[in-house]
Amino acid sequence: MSFNPLIDQYLGTQLDASIQELYAYCAQPSIAAQKLGVHECAAMTRSMLEKRGFSVQVFQTSGSPIVFAERKGRVDKTLLFYNHYDVQPPEPLELWLSPPFEPTLRDGVLFARGVSDDKGHLTSRLFAIDAILANEDELPCTIKFVVEGEEEVSSVNLEHFVKTQRELLKADACIWESGGVDFNDRPVQYLGLRGISYVELHVRTANQDVHSGLGGSIFPNAAWRMVWALQSLKGSDERIRIDGFYDDVKPVSERSRKLMAELPDTAGEYKKRYGLNGFIKGLTGGTELQIEEVFTPTCTICGLTSGYQGEGSKTILPSEARAKVDFRLVPDQRPESIIPLLRAHLDKHGFEDIEIIDLGSEAPAMTDPDDPFVQLVVESAGDVYGQSMQIVPLSGGSGPNAIFMDILKIPIVSAGVGHPGAQAHAPNENMRLDLYLKGAQHIARIIKAFGGG
Amino acid sequence: MSFNPLIDQYLGTQLDASIQELYAYCAQPSIAAQKLGVHECAAMTRSMLEKRGFSVQVFQTSGSPIVFAERKGRVDKTLLFYNHYDVQPPEPLELWLSPPFEPTLRDGVLFARGVSDDKGHLTSRLFAIDAILANEDELPCTIKFVVEGEEEVSSVNLEHFVKTQRELLKADACIWESGGVDFNDRPVQYLGLRGISYVELHVRTANQDVHSGLGGSIFPNAAWRMVWALQSLKGSDERIRIDGFYDDVKPVSERSRKLMAELPDTAGEYKKRYGLNGFIKGLTGGTELQIEEVFTPTCTICGLTSGYQGEGSKTILPSEARAKVDFRLVPDQRPESIIPLLRAHLDKHGFEDIEIIDLGSEAPAMTDPDDPFVQLVVESAGDVYGQSMQIVPLSGGSGPNAIFMDILKIPIVSAGVGHPGAQAHAPNENMRLDLYLKGAQHIARIIKAFGGG
Repeated sequence: MSFNPLIDQYLGTQLDASIQELYAYCAQPSIAAQKLGVHECAAMTRSMLEKRGFSVQVFQTSGSPIVFAERKGRVDKTLLFYNHYDVQPPEPLELWLSPPFEPTLRDGVLFARGVSDDKGHLTSRLFAIDAILANEDELPCTIKFVVEGEEEVSSVNLEHFVKTQRELLKADACIWESGGVDFNDRPVQYLGLRGISYVELHVRTANQDVHSGLGGSIFPNAAWRMVWALQSLKGSDERIRIDGFYDDVKPVSERSRKLMAELPDTAGEYKKRYGLNGFIKGLTGGTELQIEEVFTPTCTICGLTSGYQGEGSKTILPSEARAKVDFRLVPDQRPESIIPLLRAHLDKHGFEDIEIIDLGSEAPAMTDPDDPFVQLVVESAGDVYGQSMQIVPLSGGSGPNAIFMDILKIPIVSAGVGHPGAQAHAPNENMRLDLYLKGAQHIARIIKAFGGG
Repeated sequence: MSFNPLIDQYLGTQLDASIQELYAYCAQPSIAAQKLGVHECAAMTRSMLEKRGFSVQVFQTSGSPIVFAERKGRVDKTLLFYNHYDVQPPEPLELWLSPPFEPTLRDGVLFARGVSDDKGHLTSRLFAIDAILANEDELPCTIKFVVEGEEEVSSVNLEHFVKTQRELLKADACIWESGGVDFNDRPVQYLGLRGISYVELHVRTANQDVHSGLGGSIFPNAAWRMVWALQSLKGSDERIRIDGFYDDVKPVSERSRKLMAELPDTAGEYKKRYGLNGFIKGLTGGTELQIEEVFTPTCTICGLTSGYQGEGSKTILPSEARAKVDFRLVPDQRPESIIPLLRAHLDKHGFEDIEIIDLGSEAPAMTDPDDPFVQLVVESAGDVYGQSMQIVPLSGGSGPNAIFMDILKIPIVSAGVGHPGAQAHAPNENMRLDLYLKGAQHIARIIKAFGGG
């Protein structure tokens, strides 16, 4: 079945209007970690969906509201889109070339916090829907959207929502929030996400900071306690030392290894883009690097803070220290087991004084590469990108895909507007307009094919 | 020789005027680490000294100016006062009960940044001079002041100044910037200071922070590098692991041990005041704790900073990390050897990527407890405090006393207005007015006795 050229024509001519909508969407800060602008952004999301004839419900939570939308199609067969309207904090602000919440176009690239993660994905999907509805009276299939506002803070309220609304969310397949191309502009299909357990470690050793000349030889020092506790978790050999941490790690399957072996080598690109001298664990590149990148669980220090951090010297012994630590988890590790294992580890090593604050967790999950919906999405990409879509069995990031897969029992695929230089979570987050258009073309093809053409 | 009661009478009746002068002095911020207000404060110091008939010279340096003042007395015998007008940064501001640069009196205690370290000491000395000059035409001895503005940043320009101005600074004895009473309000004579080497460690592993889902398994992490480098310096056994670090440590002499054994136990007071659960190294109190407190060199993390430190979670892999570290040194460790030893250690342990930034150093130094000037100061304290002055051979803090002792070859003693709850370097720094008066009375007696009565 050949694709309706009028849909592509609409996308080609109306690109600017869609980008304008994305500008306004990105100009609205929506930082879940700082509870900033999330209600305003939820309302904006609602009105954007209503504009396309969706019936929308906004579900309040203890944090950001969840926006649900549905529009019936020619057939009952239902495609579910999962997106999020929240963004990462923009700090460090001084590294942005243009302000994070003032979307700025430079050389065909749009810069703004959230433009790639995840607002551009959502508007490109709406743009695809616009193009179909400009040419057809009805959607080819029923479409549902779940747009949450806490993806960047481990989707703390989503599981409860999906569990209690499973009838409302019933669908046959799901397209995930992200997707896009690799370093060679080849489209990539990500079939899974690692899990995560994000904690803050906190220790207090005195009721105040003390002159280091007084306490240095005899008082406990919160910064040292934290350093030693962290070092007990992982040494420079990169092996995580928590008893039982690796117990549930499933060996990488032959099918996954084969898929990973087909991916292009990213070592050179990573080194250049991030200014790396090399990789850890003696890795140099190739399939070994690719597999290690996603199929190994991690223990990453995301932030450290203690004592004096200003200019010059201040001779104090800090009374308090904090570390933000994320553990990325692979199948079949269970996020709910991480904090108990960590607590036991710290206690066993004499760090009963280190408090663990749970900042959220998500399970790892992978869709079967042989699911027919995966094939549909891969085939739809061909004529858009001029290159066959590469299948990546697992991606290094995390998200609440396990919730949907476990509760709704549906395959989840990726298709989107991202690229490796998108600087997600970093300063100068951006999106390429050419990939935005292609992403919308791809989504339009998926919807058409899913509804039967 | 009995002391002139009119001098004490002056001090008793004019206390308020001196405190008003101290208010204004503390209201002037003078943060050397942040280069804030130091020139203004130097000018203020100059005018305060000129008001007392001193001839003043202000020496410019690459940092804060050094104020030198001299007033001839009845005899050529010269007493040198060393003070500093700079203060520690006031952060964390939220812990101050009143703003750090708005001096506030509560229940006979004056709160302000710098009031105890070291502005109150200087004004109390001027107050003693006022009292003498109100009753006598001339000073009993020649008095010189060196008031520097970089004591809190390791007196980086002082050594050069003392070396090049040794004729100008010629004196027979020196009274140090600090001094005061112990937990039992008993006056204490500190005869020495530890040395210090203050460094900032810095590491950069990439040109930007990276999404932790991407780099966590394969990219170097600056925060982890810093944790491992720090842990290589000192483990939880508190033993500093740098080769050669302890080589020049002189065993504690019998004379020092005897003097330390006469000091009251501070364990209970420390625990209560700082909310400690206990001490490190299995220490519980007594002479053992006292000796460990000052006669052991330290490696103290004063500050740690890396990655995301805001509210909630941000999943990044930090590209940069910094640690502020001070090493307190005991006789006969040499500060100039510490950075080379540290560099060699880091290189040996695979941390060539950790940069060392030198933030200043000072040598340890002790005055002979049997020097006649020490005896004069101890005897002068008796009738002021109603308790005999305790001699402490070494104090845990640091300062540029070695410069004066080595170059000018003079004994250095302490006599001042401090107390153990003064919160030097911490929020709510303070000074007790009753001790301010006593400090001035003591100084007046020392000047009189030194000049021959």
